[in-house]
Amino acid sequence: MNSEIIAIGSELLTPWRQDTNSLYITERLNQLGVSVAFKTIVGDRLKHLVDAVQNAIGRTDIVVIMGGLGPTEDDVTREAAAEALGIGLKRNPDLIAQLYTRAAARRMTMTRNNEKQADLLEGAVVIENPRGTAPGQWLDIVYGKHRKLLMLLPGPPSELKPMFDEGCMPLLREALPQRFIATRVLKAALIGESAADARIAPIYTQYTDVETTILAHLGDIQLNLVCGKPNLALAQARVDSLAGKIEEELEDYIYSSQGESLEQIVLYYLEMRGATLSVAESCTGGMIAERLTKISGSSRSFAGGAVVYSNELKTEFAGVDPKLIERHGAVSREVAAALAQGIRKRCHTTLGAGVTGIAGPSGGSEDKPVGLVYLGLSDGDETEVLERRFGGDRERIRHYASQTALDMVRRRLM
Amino acid sequence: MNSEIIAIGSELLTPWRQDTNSLYITERLNQLGVSVAFKTIVGDRLKHLVDAVQNAIGRTDIVVIMGGLGPTEDDVTREAAAEALGIGLKRNPDLIAQLYTRAAARRMTMTRNNEKQADLLEGAVVIENPRGTAPGQWLDIVYGKHRKLLMLLPGPPSELKPMFDEGCMPLLREALPQRFIATRVLKAALIGESAADARIAPIYTQYTDVETTILAHLGDIQLNLVCGKPNLALAQARVDSLAGKIEEELEDYIYSSQGESLEQIVLYYLEMRGATLSVAESCTGGMIAERLTKISGSSRSFAGGAVVYSNELKTEFAGVDPKLIERHGAVSREVAAALAQGIRKRCHTTLGAGVTGIAGPSGGSEDKPVGLVYLGLSDGDETEVLERRFGGDRERIRHYASQTALDMVRRRLM
Repeated sequence: MNSEIIAIGSELLTPWRQDTNSLYITERLNQLGVSVAFKTIVGDRLKHLVDAVQNAIGRTDIVVIMGGLGPTEDDVTREAAAEALGIGLKRNPDLIAQLYTRAAARRMTMTRNNEKQADLLEGAVVIENPRGTAPGQWLDIVYGKHRKLLMLLPGPPSELKPMFDEGCMPLLREALPQRFIATRVLKAALIGESAADARIAPIYTQYTDVETTILAHLGDIQLNLVCGKPNLALAQARVDSLAGKIEEELEDYIYSSQGESLEQIVLYYLEMRGATLSVAESCTGGMIAERLTKISGSSRSFAGGAVVYSNELKTEFAGVDPKLIERHGAVSREVAAALAQGIRKRCHTTLGAGVTGIAGPSGGSEDKPVGLVYLGLSDGDETEVLERRFGGDRERIRHYASQTALDMVRRRLM
Repeated sequence: MNSEIIAIGSELLTPWRQDTNSLYITERLNQLGVSVAFKTIVGDRLKHLVDAVQNAIGRTDIVVIMGGLGPTEDDVTREAAAEALGIGLKRNPDLIAQLYTRAAARRMTMTRNNEKQADLLEGAVVIENPRGTAPGQWLDIVYGKHRKLLMLLPGPPSELKPMFDEGCMPLLREALPQRFIATRVLKAALIGESAADARIAPIYTQYTDVETTILAHLGDIQLNLVCGKPNLALAQARVDSLAGKIEEELEDYIYSSQGESLEQIVLYYLEMRGATLSVAESCTGGMIAERLTKISGSSRSFAGGAVVYSNELKTEFAGVDPKLIERHGAVSREVAAALAQGIRKRCHTTLGAGVTGIAGPSGGSEDKPVGLVYLGLSDGDETEVLERRFGGDRERIRHYASQTALDMVRRRLM
């Protein structure tokens, strides 16, 4: 079974906005064993919309249409679907009544143009929209001798997502052949995509019934394993077996076997060991702290730290000896170690981390080029320093530095 | 003139990845007065691709196809375009030679499968790809009695973007009727989208020749003004006139009239006034520092600061009296003021900012609910404190808090 997702809205065809709803819908469809073969993004011109719906219904089994169900003139999805499918569109009195009741309950006057939201495609089932005005519609029809499922859904994510989960998923489950999907998400840090693939391709290619996808982004690798079987235990056993072999092969590069983020894992390890962490950040400028504090409950293990951009603040907040900076430079192995030791002392934490480097694009020299970063980690007794040379632009260098620092903490606690 | 952008790649049909190249291409096309009517995302199955290309060429004038030009079996864009257009595909000896030369220069052996990258559509012009292996292709053809422009481009952004700018833009400029597009981007902080629209809609609706788009995201509003005329000065005059009236209406909500980010504007004002800034962040956990240090050269005006998650660190790094915290609580007007004053002193900066609040989802009480944030800003003489109650989840609350803090600094310096 394959599907097409159509996102409607002229703003989605500008350089500034893009459809993200389809990612959510894709995840849900995949859970049912339905793959997405096409995504189409189209504006609110009736002619274009009719064309998009006609193409979709011709080439896929399931069509999810999002947006264009509101009361304005630009909202022409219902008309377009009717024209594309060659079926009627009728104003439904029950739906009109509901619209008036809803408006009254909110002490709003319902203007006449709102009534178009009660137009129902011939044979359609209404999908309730408790979070908005326009109801969704579900069609289970025969088109060109083939059975087709078609959904008309509102565009706002706050209405669309719950409506898909509560309204469409049960209908889809009933309409589709029973099939169970098991998934696993493994994550690895700081191994290249091709290096990882070279090591695990001989393994996952043997599991032809498990779909394996590798995604790499800024020093983070995500491996998605998906398997569909008529029996859930069987599907689960297959993805677990493959996950186990991949974990063996990639060893300690793997930081998560259930999809947790690196930040979550670091905080989890800290808590498990009863340890606390503080950081002194120069070139990462607060990114490590920001990443950790994004997680709710991080305050239990992450004390905080300092953003020590200037040399003076390296001394003020992490007690780095100005002579050390003078002798070795702010970007040096010695200063990274001193930052880690100093911030640990000042914050009274189990571990202290210090990062200093040149994020660029300016500030580099032949001796100390852009991308050079020193990362220190101290537990009081022992201070480890890594030297790294990251490529790419300022944002990439900063991200890799923060990723490496978090991974150092993870490895220390493992 | 309208266009369609086709993005090819099975990974773009997963829940984890999406096409972003099209945003860049859309911006470029818009600059030429070409609008994007459709975007299609399709996997690497030949049949699906042929279908996508055929639909696109039938319904639009310009078709930009991205991806699927590599040497692997999955790379079938050339074949699909040939089949969809009903034209031939020939292996080009000059291109083969180039491929071998390129491989030799890099001391790599060129395997036979690479030769398919030399397959050229009948009548196509080669677009050089200095940053990669697969060249692009440009077709200016008559299809169904209409003139059509078609581009085949590589998928990796690092190859695609420069190729589009250097290779396609000159060809497009030559092929399209001369038309000049003027644009302006205004930005406003911390005014709601509907509030802003209610105030400016009576203005921009009078400029029917200027396309006005409003985008809102986490306390940041972007107004895009686009106008196309046969004469650039005329187009520029129209967007400038509208921009002037919008600026008058929204007054000091507007922080940028040329598209700069709030971070850039804050750093610009600091530098202009010869001022420096430090921050003590509790609930934002480093986000303000991270946002500022993202900008290259920020170290000239932003000294750094401290992430003072725990009460102890509020005292240690910003000198907040523990009794003050005991008396008023860590989340209070008084502590926000003390954080701002304290961090300013410790960092020896012109301005000091302090943020304390409850980001949630836990930690709230009836008295001090989730979303309550106090923001302090001190210049030594005067300390201003704002109390805000932000809605939404942890990430949204943290983002609004950092946005408000940056905007406070901007308004102080204005």
